[in-house]
Amino acid sequence: MVRRVNPPDGEPSEREMGRLEAFSDGVFAIAITLLILEIAIPLDSPHLGHDLLDRWPSFLAYAISFMVILIMWVNHHMVFKLIDRSDRRFLIINGILLMLITFVNYPTALLADYLTTSQSRTAMLVYSGTFVVVALSFNLLWRYASYNRRLLSDSADPDLIAAISRAFRFGPLMYFAAFVAAFVYVPLSIAISAGLAIYYAVYGLRGDNGLEPEPEPAPVTSE
Amino acid sequence: MVRRVNPPDGEPSEREMGRLEAFSDGVFAIAITLLILEIAIPLDSPHLGHDLLDRWPSFLAYAISFMVILIMWVNHHMVFKLIDRSDRRFLIINGILLMLITFVNYPTALLADYLTTSQSRTAMLVYSGTFVVVALSFNLLWRYASYNRRLLSDSADPDLIAAISRAFRFGPLMYFAAFVAAFVYVPLSIAISAGLAIYYAVYGLRGDNGLEPEPEPAPVTSE
Amino acid sequence: MVRRVNPPDGEPSEREMGRLEAFSDGVFAIAITLLILEIAIPLDSPHLGHDLLDRWPSFLAYAISFMVILIMWVNHHMVFKLIDRSDRRFLIINGILLMLITFVNYPTALLADYLTTSQSRTAMLVYSGTFVVVALSFNLLWRYASYNRRLLSDSADPDLIAAISRAFRFGPLMYFAAFVAAFVYVPLSIAISAGLAIYYAVYGLRGDNGLEPEPEPAPVTSE
Amino acid sequence: MVRRVNPPDGEPSEREMGRLEAFSDGVFAIAITLLILEIAIPLDSPHLGHDLLDRWPSFLAYAISFMVILIMWVNHHMVFKLIDRSDRRFLIINGILLMLITFVNYPTALLADYLTTSQSRTAMLVYSGTFVVVALSFNLLWRYASYNRRLLSDSADPDLIAAISRAFRFGPLMYFAAFVAAFVYVPLSIAISAGLAIYYAVYGLRGDNGLEPEPEPAPVTSE
Repeated sequence: MVRRVNPPDGEPSEREMGRLEAFSDGVFAIAITLLILEIAIPLDSPHLGHDLLDRWPSFLAYAISFMVILIMWVNHHMVFKLIDRSDRRFLIINGILLMLITFVNYPTALLADYLTTSQSRTAMLVYSGTFVVVALSFNLLWRYASYNRRLLSDSADPDLIAAISRAFRFGPLMYFAAFVAAFVYVPLSIAISAGLAIYYAVYGLRGDNGLEPEPEPAPVTSE
Repeated sequence: MVRRVNPPDGEPSEREMGRLEAFSDGVFAIAITLLILEIAIPLDSPHLGHDLLDRWPSFLAYAISFMVILIMWVNHHMVFKLIDRSDRRFLIINGILLMLITFVNYPTALLADYLTTSQSRTAMLVYSGTFVVVALSFNLLWRYASYNRRLLSDSADPDLIAAISRAFRFGPLMYFAAFVAAFVYVPLSIAISAGLAIYYAVYGLRGDNGLEPEPEPAPVTSE
Repeated sequence: MVRRVNPPDGEPSEREMGRLEAFSDGVFAIAITLLILEIAIPLDSPHLGHDLLDRWPSFLAYAISFMVILIMWVNHHMVFKLIDRSDRRFLIINGILLMLITFVNYPTALLADYLTTSQSRTAMLVYSGTFVVVALSFNLLWRYASYNRRLLSDSADPDLIAAISRAFRFGPLMYFAAFVAAFVYVPLSIAISAGLAIYYAVYGLRGDNGLEPEPEPAPVTSE
Repeated sequence: MVRRVNPPDGEPSEREMGRLEAFSDGVFAIAITLLILEIAIPLDSPHLGHDLLDRWPSFLAYAISFMVILIMWVNHHMVFKLIDRSDRRFLIINGILLMLITFVNYPTALLADYLTTSQSRTAMLVYSGTFVVVALSFNLLWRYASYNRRLLSDSADPDLIAAISRAFRFGPLMYFAAFVAAFVYVPLSIAISAGLAIYYAVYGLRGDNGLEPEPEPAPVTSE
């Protein structure tokens, strides 16, 4: 394990965390940008406006997936602000999370193609199921890093840590609800997925969720 | 909200802004690079030169979109130089802007495919309409950050701030003119779009637009 | 060659290494994210669940390639932590390694398309052969950098260097075993490839392989 | 123009250059990685090995383009090491250079598809013509930055500057030779293009071209 060698000057561990962050950010940025490639252009359409409106499942799937990946990035961002070192196990867990993030592209394209067909249930199950697994792997990442403050920086606020643990616990449950709903009624599952994306955005916008980085104890570095 | 915790050493907020900038730059860089993938290669063409020239709408749409995204990046760059902190709401607005930037790819491909067909009006409306929305979201980002100097750094020059606010106000209007022109005569709309890209480049090249970072008050840090 | 001009302040060489690292990370991040684009969406499938399960070779090839590139990135990360300068020859070797990393995309798509066809042997030979060449070029990179500690930082631990040299020697042999196995029995070759990916992940997870960055001599910078 | 505000602490201009470098690196990294997507996978081939060998033009075009973009990146790297500030005009020129770098993808795919057809001449003219324009825009970038040392750092060695100016002058001529050769005999044009890529790599490997960053005056910062 990478021990904290940074108490005095912090250089090596910081550079390492920086590279891990940059790599993760790169994967997030690419995965989120590639989503658009999955929306097909209508071929030789004589009624383009009409055909574009017909593609609403593509645009909806695109928008939901974009928001989900963006929220995942914001969360990743929040976790990384609290940790200041890494070990190989964390690297692998982070790698698996990134694999799942890049994978989101596939169910998004699947949903876009099949939402208005007889196979919409299967597509929606794969779509929401992917988000369940992503949310679970996010929990694994956080739990591994925060267990006994394994990788957390000394200045990480205990209240904030507890608030994050509480909040992350709900993620998989919510996406699991969307997954179960797909068995019952596909539009309900979509509504839950879209609702979650909007909810997280608005909830974040309110700024009263106790998860804001604000309460982070101001580092009183008298130098 | 992320309070300014950086007066003494500036570290945490700076690292955070750095990561936000890097993520945004990544999305801009990928979105601008993916544009080329939308220009199709002629299939088994017996007259390749001729067929390539026939694809001029693809190349034109590619060049205009590249310049628009590049100008958006330069503007993003300029805004981020004036702010020194972020909050969750800003993160979300920036996320929506990035979603629109990645979306530019789609209308670009649409215009490339339909500019010389009977559906050129629809394609051009989607294309110019996208730019209107991008420009509006850019204004939202700037207005949110600059309102009461919410996220601006103390050293940000008031004159420069006012000049940016004035300049950004015109963006949506210009793109809206291209949007309206598409109803009247599609080539006019293209000419406006291309003209805007060239105008911003040349206007930028002139260096007399009052928006240059030059007037930024030199930080007199006596240390 | 870029001499070490950084003893006193370290700035120029560090900035240069940072840019090389960032460029390499970018290529790794993009190559790993593009993999998902190669898994085709079933077209108008009336039995989507069944057709998705039929695509298991695509998902398997995707997962193995993702893990291989991730492990390569972790190794690249480890090598770059030990070196603190670069020269043009190193830049070119690193460039060739990056070319091979981006190339992995192609045999992955090939294997996905041909694993359940009569051409599976050829696809598997190209797939495993690519990994042999990647592993060889990784060795070249390391050997060039570590020969007479050419590009290594002064603080790089000799024991760690020796351990890396030993470990890297096995990589090409392992992938060569998968290559040879493809001649005998294709499933065996796949099993070796998948096993290697899991083995490296688990072995890394154990943390007892002597390759952990931990033993790195703590920089005792009394300042 | 961004004046040098960095004499005392160097912060603002350095952060700005860092972001410009990072954006450029991102575009280079993505453009170089996307090249692989243009090599098509044979469809339902009954003789995969044979069909893959038949695709040699794709692999050749891929390898040459990868090396050309890599060399351009190394050059970009070298130029940016000598400059320490930017202005809007430089930003635009750099943007045009980046547009051309991303464009390389298109003629590469074109050459891959048409090298063994009756249209090989047209494809080769577009391919080599693109490199002429890229090399010219690189010269423009360098000439703009180095004219009267406009954007160069004070510590930039005059001999190195002169050596770069000499070396860059040959780039467009060489690629122009490949362009002209395409009119005469396409294989000759390919040979020149491939030879140039190898030559620059080997010439770089030799380390005796006077362009190595080595002669850069060691910054004697007594601190």
